[in-house]
Amino acid sequence: MSKNNIDTLLYRALNGDIRAISKLLTIIEFPADHDIETISSIMRNLMNRGGKAHIIGVTGSPGVGKSTLISKLISLFRDRNERVAVLSIDPSSPFTLGSFMGNRIRMQSHSLDPNVFIRSTATRGVTGGLSPSSVLLIEAFDGLGFDKIIIESVGVGQTDVDIINVSHTVINVLMPGAGDEIQAMKAGIMEIGDIYVVNKSDKPEADLVYRQLTEIIRSSKYKSKYGWVPKVVKVSSIMGHGISELGDIIDEHRKFLIDRGSFSDIIIHRRVYSVELILKYIIEEKIRKDLKKDGSDILDKVVSGNIDPYTASLTIYNKLAKTC
Amino acid sequence: MSKNNIDTLLYRALNGDIRAISKLLTIIEFPADHDIETISSIMRNLMNRGGKAHIIGVTGSPGVGKSTLISKLISLFRDRNERVAVLSIDPSSPFTLGSFMGNRIRMQSHSLDPNVFIRSTATRGVTGGLSPSSVLLIEAFDGLGFDKIIIESVGVGQTDVDIINVSHTVINVLMPGAGDEIQAMKAGIMEIGDIYVVNKSDKPEADLVYRQLTEIIRSSKYKSKYGWVPKVVKVSSIMGHGISELGDIIDEHRKFLIDRGSFSDIIIHRRVYSVELILKYIIEEKIRKDLKKDGSDILDKVVSGNIDPYTASLTIYNKLAKTC
Repeated sequence: MSKNNIDTLLYRALNGDIRAISKLLTIIEFPADHDIETISSIMRNLMNRGGKAHIIGVTGSPGVGKSTLISKLISLFRDRNERVAVLSIDPSSPFTLGSFMGNRIRMQSHSLDPNVFIRSTATRGVTGGLSPSSVLLIEAFDGLGFDKIIIESVGVGQTDVDIINVSHTVINVLMPGAGDEIQAMKAGIMEIGDIYVVNKSDKPEADLVYRQLTEIIRSSKYKSKYGWVPKVVKVSSIMGHGISELGDIIDEHRKFLIDRGSFSDIIIHRRVYSVELILKYIIEEKIRKDLKKDGSDILDKVVSGNIDPYTASLTIYNKLAKTC
Repeated sequence: MSKNNIDTLLYRALNGDIRAISKLLTIIEFPADHDIETISSIMRNLMNRGGKAHIIGVTGSPGVGKSTLISKLISLFRDRNERVAVLSIDPSSPFTLGSFMGNRIRMQSHSLDPNVFIRSTATRGVTGGLSPSSVLLIEAFDGLGFDKIIIESVGVGQTDVDIINVSHTVINVLMPGAGDEIQAMKAGIMEIGDIYVVNKSDKPEADLVYRQLTEIIRSSKYKSKYGWVPKVVKVSSIMGHGISELGDIIDEHRKFLIDRGSFSDIIIHRRVYSVELILKYIIEEKIRKDLKKDGSDILDKVVSGNIDPYTASLTIYNKLAKTC
């Protein structure tokens, strides 16, 4: 892409032109389809302006009502005239991709609002973590002046870990009957969120989950990143109950981070983490290709039991290191 | 280690000497502490004899009763005079490591049986997948002549994916009230197991979970790897109900795989997968070190927004490729 075209596109996108934003994001989503100068130039322009957006990760099991909750949060932020971007992480399940259309439909009430931008993107398989595109899209939304960037994830595996690493505020959505999650928290296997939302608070079991969570946090002296004591809030997304209280807690957490200088620390962490994530991706792709091309002899020996996987890996690594 | 010492150790271990087995496994668990010739020689010896063990992965959320179930399965296999190894995957949670002692105690009834070997090993963090040691330990158990190798995992993230890739038979343990898991199955986010165990079948909700699972499998025409239609079985590990039925299904699945030639295909897949897993590990370690040593200039630029993570990653990769 010529420098002129890039400048025009950026100028239009930065002035809020939805079609220009969309085009820019599509370029960023498939960086390998473009020359590196185009990507570098676009991203440098955006990242220089970034570092202001509040990144909010929303995780939770399927069916807990994340999309409806996010839709209500969008309305709340829009009432304050904030611009909102949503990055929805598609699990790319090999079995079904159906649940995704549901999200889109539920969020359609915002689809005519030019200050709300919703984008879905793929992960690296169900549990494989954020794709390089996702972290670039987050930087792009930030540079384009969105005040809130909400990342919606199914909350499984490496993807969850990645979202914790790129977000300022992690909201963990549970619903009544979340016994497994509470077990997992007790066992220390569930990652700590900054805010726990007990959704579907109209259901009878909601109070129990609320009390259990509050008690675990109190008794274990749990703190999430940067010394914040997690808050629990009951919400009924469908009825609209508890949303403004949740909004207050989100603001409180943001203020907490800013007061301690942690807000910008998290941005530094996010950007360094993004490099590690993309570098890992590039190298894993290279390994996959090289193994196919040059590794078949040695793999045959591993299969027949004449070389063990450890020795084979060291041998392949040393060979790669010499020839790359 | 001298060739003589290795040969003696192997001879003793292959003859069932518990202390020799234990020593051998400790060497294999920390391969980097030994010269590569020692590891290669031990592993080649073992892998040449391997390829016979039935690898059974047992996954499920914390609290569903995996350890008690495994303890009952061990008794069942021992009654047929089979030798059993258990590899228990410790989540190495940053918050608590406590749950593990419970497992050991629950399995103690087998601790005096020389034909049952239980080993716990660390993963790469909560969700980070199997360690290189784990896959080497599996090959070692196989080579040492254990008939059944049971891998117990908390079933989260990459660790779960890895276990599916190295096992012949995956048993997914659920308990009454497993609504989230069933939601996850419906959404296609939960990986398919070969056998679903509804544990704690004495609880009233067990029948509901059993029927829901059966119905999902029936209506979706779910098949797991190699065309097997997953089976659901109700078990009360504590009461001992359903264990022999589960044993029959495990045998049926093994026979299904052998009849189709898939049993050995899975061993081939496991060994190739092990190489990928270890190679990835070696390279990620190298990246981490190199980023610390040489990456700080470029990372500073990413943090300040003057280089984007994608361009930075390509630059670092090209630099690594030139100097390695």
